Amino acid sequence: MKIDNDCLLRALLRQPVVRTPVWLMRQAGRYLPEYRATRARAGDFLTLCKTPELACEVTLQPLARFPLDAAILFSDILTIPDAMGLGLSIDEGIGPRLARPIVAPGDVDRLGVPDPEGELRYVMDAVRAIRSALGTRLPLIGFAGSPWTLACYMLEGGGSREFHRAKRFVYDEPRAAHRLLEVLARAVGVYLRAQIAAGVDAVMVFDTWGGALSARAYREFSLAYMERIIATLPRERDGRRIPSIVFTKGGGPWLEAIASIGCDAVGIDWTQAIDDARRRVGSRVALQGNLDPAVLLAAPARIETEVAAILADFGHGDGHVFNLGHGITPQVDPSHAGAMIEAVHRLSPAYHRSH
Amino acid sequence: MKIDNDCLLRALLRQPVVRTPVWLMRQAGRYLPEYRATRARAGDFLTLCKTPELACEVTLQPLARFPLDAAILFSDILTIPDAMGLGLSIDEGIGPRLARPIVAPGDVDRLGVPDPEGELRYVMDAVRAIRSALGTRLPLIGFAGSPWTLACYMLEGGGSREFHRAKRFVYDEPRAAHRLLEVLARAVGVYLRAQIAAGVDAVMVFDTWGGALSARAYREFSLAYMERIIATLPRERDGRRIPSIVFTKGGGPWLEAIASIGCDAVGIDWTQAIDDARRRVGSRVALQGNLDPAVLLAAPARIETEVAAILADFGHGDGHVFNLGHGITPQVDPSHAGAMIEAVHRLSPAYHRSH
Repeated sequence: MKIDNDCLLRALLRQPVVRTPVWLMRQAGRYLPEYRATRARAGDFLTLCKTPELACEVTLQPLARFPLDAAILFSDILTIPDAMGLGLSIDEGIGPRLARPIVAPGDVDRLGVPDPEGELRYVMDAVRAIRSALGTRLPLIGFAGSPWTLACYMLEGGGSREFHRAKRFVYDEPRAAHRLLEVLARAVGVYLRAQIAAGVDAVMVFDTWGGALSARAYREFSLAYMERIIATLPRERDGRRIPSIVFTKGGGPWLEAIASIGCDAVGIDWTQAIDDARRRVGSRVALQGNLDPAVLLAAPARIETEVAAILADFGHGDGHVFNLGHGITPQVDPSHAGAMIEAVHRLSPAYHRSH
Repeated sequence: MKIDNDCLLRALLRQPVVRTPVWLMRQAGRYLPEYRATRARAGDFLTLCKTPELACEVTLQPLARFPLDAAILFSDILTIPDAMGLGLSIDEGIGPRLARPIVAPGDVDRLGVPDPEGELRYVMDAVRAIRSALGTRLPLIGFAGSPWTLACYMLEGGGSREFHRAKRFVYDEPRAAHRLLEVLARAVGVYLRAQIAAGVDAVMVFDTWGGALSARAYREFSLAYMERIIATLPRERDGRRIPSIVFTKGGGPWLEAIASIGCDAVGIDWTQAIDDARRRVGSRVALQGNLDPAVLLAAPARIETEVAAILADFGHGDGHVFNLGHGITPQVDPSHAGAMIEAVHRLSPAYHRSH
C-alpha cells in the first residue's frame, strides 16, 4: 500500500522532500475541545484508550483541523504494565497509578510478555480501525514506552520527580533490574512488531525518563534495551521500509550514542540546538524536533519566529521532521498549534532541494 | 588570611592538589538530624536563614561530622526576591511561595537593587559569623541564584514543573523580561561582591532552572546575565584569588558556552559524563560534580563503586572538585554521605601528581 503523503516517511529515511514534514507529540489531546468531548463521552482516559472506535476517533481529530503529515495512534505507554497485571488507572489531572508496583526482586519473576493479540488486542484493533479510516492518505505512527521508562512507572507505582525508588532498585538490585528490563524489552518488541503487522507505517520509542539517569546508567539501563528492541523490528513490510524513531527526553548529552543504536531517526527535546545535533549525528539518522512546547503559549508572531529559527538552524537538506520537543500541553490554544504548522508549511520549502 | 585546607580553592583554579576536594550541595540540610533540631528551634526555614547565629550553627554542622573541604553559607537563593519586596514564605515540604509575583511588564519597574548591608544584612552577618567561627580552617563558599532562576520564581510565584508563566513572559514580553533580568543581574552582582567583602573565599551561581530553556533562550535569558555578573566580581581579595563556580542544572548540552563566560569552574549534573565534559571544556575551567544524589540511597558498597567510576572518568590531573550533581536529598542516611566522602579521600590521591 502506497501512502499518498509520504513526506514524513521519506524525511525519516533522509530521502528528499519538497518541505519539512510536521506532526505534534500528543497531537490528539486535551488542547482540542473535540478531544475533551470524546473523552467526556468515554467517561475516562483509560476507557478511551481501550475502546478502538473511540481511540480511532480521537486519533483522526487533529487531522481534520490541521494539515499534519502523520497520524499517531492514540494510546498510552502504560498499556504494557497494565497488561502485565500491575493494575493501571489514569487520572489525566494527577497522572497514572499502578495498583501493584514492583517492590521486591521476586516481583519481577511474575511478569510475562503480554500477547498483543490477547490482552493488548484493543491496541491492535485501534491500529486496524485507524488504518482503515485513514486509507492511504497519511502514514500512521505506532509507539511504545522504553523499557526504562516503563520500569520507572512500575517501580514508583506512578509518576515521580526524582525516581528514588526506581534508581535505588537499579543500584541496589542490578540483577533484578536487568531481568525486569529484559522482560520489558521483549514485551515492547513483540508489541511494536504487532503494531507494524496491524498497519502502522513507522514506530517511535518514547524514553521519557531516560534523561533522569547518569550517563553511565543511561547506557546500561535504558539505551542498551532500546537497541535490543530496534534490532528485532522488521526493516520492511510489503517491500516498504518501516522507519523507527527513538526519543529520550533530556538525552541531548548522549546524542551520538543514541544515533548509533540502529534507529532511523532521533527525537530531540528543545534544550538541544538542532544545528549542534545535526553536526553531532552527521548522516547517521534523521532528527525530529524541537520547538519548546511552551512557545505555543506565546503570540502567533513569536511562534513563527521560533519556527523560522529552528528551520534555519537545521538548514538546507533532508532528514528533518518538525515537531515539538515534548508533548503539546492542554493550555495551548489550538489556533497556536495551527500557526506553528502553517509556518512550517510556508517557510520550510526554501530549505529543500527542489527550491 | 591563609586558609589551612586550601584544597578546594586550588582545585577550582586548576592548581595541583594531593587529593580531590569534596563538598556536598545542600550539605547543611534536612538529611542531618542536628539540622532538623536547629530548624525546629528556629520554628521555620526562613527564620533559620534570617538569624545569623542559627545560620552559622547549621553551616558548621556537616563539618563536625564529615571531613569536608569547604563550608557553604546556609541561606536561600530567594533572599533577593524577598528583599525586593515580593513576600517570600518557605514551607520545606511544599517549596517557596512569593506573595506578590511579577504578573505584568509594569511590575518590573518597581524593583530595585537591595542593599546587601541593609535588607540583606542578615546574610552578611551570617557570613561574618561563619567566617569567625571557622577561623582559617576551611574555605567558605558564598552563593546566589542566577537571574533567570530568580526570575522563574518571581514570575511563577513559586516552583514550577513547566515554567509556563515565566516562558510566556520572556517570549511575549522580551523587553520587560530583559529589564527584569538586568535588575536581577545587578542585584546578584552587588550581593556576591558584598559576600566576598564579608569573608567568603569562593562564590557559586546556582542556575537551577536554566536547563528548562531552549538552547537559544538559555544564551539570551540566562547565560548572558551570568556572564555579566562574573565580569563584575573582584578577581582577588587581599591578594588571594576568589574563584567563581557556575552551575546550570541540565546545562550539559551547553558546556562549552558556559565554560566561556569567565568563571573558574563549572558545576555539572549527573547526566553529563565527566570525561566528555573534561574533553569539551579543555583547560578553560575546573569541573565540579557529578554523582547522582539518588546513588546515596543505595548501599555504601555501591556508592563507593560509583565514586570510583567518576574519579576514573575524570582521570589524572587537577581541576576536579567532587560533589553531587544536585543537592543532597532529605531521605539520605548521613552515614551514606560519609561513605561517599570517605571514598573520595581514599581513592582520589592516586589521580594526583604527588602519587
